[in-house]
Amino acid sequence: MTIIPPRLPKGMRDVLPGQMVLRQHVLAIVEGVFAEFGFEPLITPAIELSEILYGKYGADAEKLFFMVEHPGGKEKLGLRYDLSVPLSRVVAQYPDLPKPFRRYQIAPVWRAERPQHGRYREFYQCDADVVGSASMLADAEIIALIFTILRRLGFEQFVTLINDRKILAGIGQYCGVPSEQVPQLHRAIDKLDKIGVDGVREELRKAGLTDSTADRLLDLLQPGGGPQLGLGDLRRALADYPIALEGIGELEELLRYLPALGVAEGFYRVDLAMVRGLDYYTGPIYETLVEKPRIGSITGGGRFDGLVGRFSTQGYPATGTTIGIERIIDVLEDLNMAPGAMGQTSVQVLVTVFGPQTLPDSLQLVADLRNAGLRCELYYDADPLGAQIRYAVKKGIPFVAIAGPDELAAGQVTVRDLRRKSQVQVGRTDVAGAIRKQIADSSQPRQERGMQ
Amino acid sequence: MTIIPPRLPKGMRDVLPGQMVLRQHVLAIVEGVFAEFGFEPLITPAIELSEILYGKYGADAEKLFFMVEHPGGKEKLGLRYDLSVPLSRVVAQYPDLPKPFRRYQIAPVWRAERPQHGRYREFYQCDADVVGSASMLADAEIIALIFTILRRLGFEQFVTLINDRKILAGIGQYCGVPSEQVPQLHRAIDKLDKIGVDGVREELRKAGLTDSTADRLLDLLQPGGGPQLGLGDLRRALADYPIALEGIGELEELLRYLPALGVAEGFYRVDLAMVRGLDYYTGPIYETLVEKPRIGSITGGGRFDGLVGRFSTQGYPATGTTIGIERIIDVLEDLNMAPGAMGQTSVQVLVTVFGPQTLPDSLQLVADLRNAGLRCELYYDADPLGAQIRYAVKKGIPFVAIAGPDELAAGQVTVRDLRRKSQVQVGRTDVAGAIRKQIADSSQPRQERGMQ
Repeated sequence: MTIIPPRLPKGMRDVLPGQMVLRQHVLAIVEGVFAEFGFEPLITPAIELSEILYGKYGADAEKLFFMVEHPGGKEKLGLRYDLSVPLSRVVAQYPDLPKPFRRYQIAPVWRAERPQHGRYREFYQCDADVVGSASMLADAEIIALIFTILRRLGFEQFVTLINDRKILAGIGQYCGVPSEQVPQLHRAIDKLDKIGVDGVREELRKAGLTDSTADRLLDLLQPGGGPQLGLGDLRRALADYPIALEGIGELEELLRYLPALGVAEGFYRVDLAMVRGLDYYTGPIYETLVEKPRIGSITGGGRFDGLVGRFSTQGYPATGTTIGIERIIDVLEDLNMAPGAMGQTSVQVLVTVFGPQTLPDSLQLVADLRNAGLRCELYYDADPLGAQIRYAVKKGIPFVAIAGPDELAAGQVTVRDLRRKSQVQVGRTDVAGAIRKQIADSSQPRQERGMQ
Repeated sequence: MTIIPPRLPKGMRDVLPGQMVLRQHVLAIVEGVFAEFGFEPLITPAIELSEILYGKYGADAEKLFFMVEHPGGKEKLGLRYDLSVPLSRVVAQYPDLPKPFRRYQIAPVWRAERPQHGRYREFYQCDADVVGSASMLADAEIIALIFTILRRLGFEQFVTLINDRKILAGIGQYCGVPSEQVPQLHRAIDKLDKIGVDGVREELRKAGLTDSTADRLLDLLQPGGGPQLGLGDLRRALADYPIALEGIGELEELLRYLPALGVAEGFYRVDLAMVRGLDYYTGPIYETLVEKPRIGSITGGGRFDGLVGRFSTQGYPATGTTIGIERIIDVLEDLNMAPGAMGQTSVQVLVTVFGPQTLPDSLQLVADLRNAGLRCELYYDADPLGAQIRYAVKKGIPFVAIAGPDELAAGQVTVRDLRRKSQVQVGRTDVAGAIRKQIADSSQPRQERGMQ
């Protein structure tokens, strides 16, 4: 038989068990916080009708779509490109879903982008959205959600930048930019990080602003870390532009809620130069920068009240965020920010075997430890003990339970801690407790211990 | 703008939040037991190269493949059809993975089958396999794994049928069936449930067996509930067929391990008429029937030592099982076997709001309850209390925390239990504890309470 070389499609990857430990740790925290905030999970199929997928993202994105077909199939099909379109479809398709509809979805999406380091053609998105409420409480809860997740993941210094599309629209009017050119204005401001104040001024000139108008605009935005205007100052400066005042009112309300919801001072601020790329936002927008370690933007979102419009005549106000979990996982891995006791495997104990005489005791021991909730592997062959222990070391299993003939004759089991290179003998019924205690002892904060 | 009707491709479905509660409960139990048994998770991409997918399943299955392409893409691609082929590829592709490699994978697969009730074109498979050990301990652990999962899910009466392909091969020799006709023999036996003893006899006649040979075979198998032969009897009857004796030796060893691993008597038995459809099994095979409620087969597996052969010259012994989680979820739902307190939502508490004066207290309350680990929704609008409570009832949220002006003035919060239709006033800082206590009180076994 011809051997088929085992390989993956371009841009695809496997996540092997050693990488799954950290991944599951991150997902458990994220899903736990979603649940505490009353967000509920949703599964939609990977395959959607092409008519659902096409027409929202633009031609450049559509070139990246994966199309799907099967022999004899008549439908035009494709793999989902993000989780927003399936959400819109679901909200339109099941009008009886109780509103506000708070859903999260953590699922792969497919984009045939040019593969590069850390970028894959299948990757997991993680979105949380509230559909059916226009209240600023919903926006405040999204920001509180982000704060809670990042803190619980161990990030110590980050800031959620907050702005409002209505303020940006008002600023466009203030600058005398006709409404159809406002997106161009936004794009110019958005490039600030990359091209600097002078670059933005040049872009604004191209957009038709005079130098003096550009200066007025830049004074207002204080890009690049100048003293930000307070919302009160902004209210006075933009007093003639009702849309701006509406946006300022939204942010004032939003900001009032954050402290009561437990979002600590210093973890959020208004940044009028943060505009976010997508055109569909309609109110508050937010983006989180992790400042230490300096890894840039890892969440993005905002209010998008036109969500369901493509699929229903009934509109719904909506707000939400995407959380860059692939990026977060990469960062935690690269920076050794995973909890101290986290290794290459989720297995906690290897139960060794000696031979036919003691095997029933080894089986009984592994069954007991599992019943006590410990994650245990049973060694399957009667190899010398040294080989069994080397296997545990290679796999990164922290504990080995040794029930040899001598131990068993004394009603004992030896528990060896491979990290601390120590061992104790304990009574046959005390093994689970002894291992649990040692696990608890070694789960000190990572700052003190680091990765093992 | 034209409205695009929101709909799904043929045979696809959404899993809405109300259905996710039970689904997550099942998956948490299954994944918890996998972890206790030392199985680790694996993610492989949905898309595989066609050369990897084609050539194993046969032409009938390949008609059901979903093929994938993208503009400008040169690779031939398809969606995975099961989880065994990706496992084979992974084992061949990463030869350094520590062996035995115990992995589980719970992931969707795609098959363009004719849609029917309860059958979808995207559905989740759940496989656990041990690759790289020929030990019968591995097979015994798979059966113990199945036992533990089904017990923990609440199934009370089920049996894992055990057989061995080597015994079946020996029986073929015993009947004088040439080896190339043994699969036909197996298929005849396998149909017993559907066509009965006479039907099987007719099939055996077509396979070239004389009536007397067929009778010898049927005496051996005792299909349809006759007294099963013990393995000792079988050893004597098949003494001239070394392959059968090897298989009998495997089962004797396997059966010795099960009690020590905690598999209770009555939950497994040898059934020589259980053959399983697929040709690739090479040793012990197992299939679990749930007898009460009588829902038929929900796990299937066995030893398949030729696993990696298509992708590597290096072979690996392997054994494992698939667990029909979609079927299990359907059954638990249909039979109201979900735990008593399980409702339509994972949300436990609705925190009501009254108006601007009390809003900061409501926000503080919801933040505190979340910090205490409770899953809470905040009501976003200052609707009348009755409307807020009706919302909780509609969504199935069991508790409502009411912090109205009167309560707050007295430092109190009212906790209403919507299931028991009762309410208590508790001190502001005792709310989480009071709700936790009521949740614990209402989590009695489902036999006593049933679904609410």
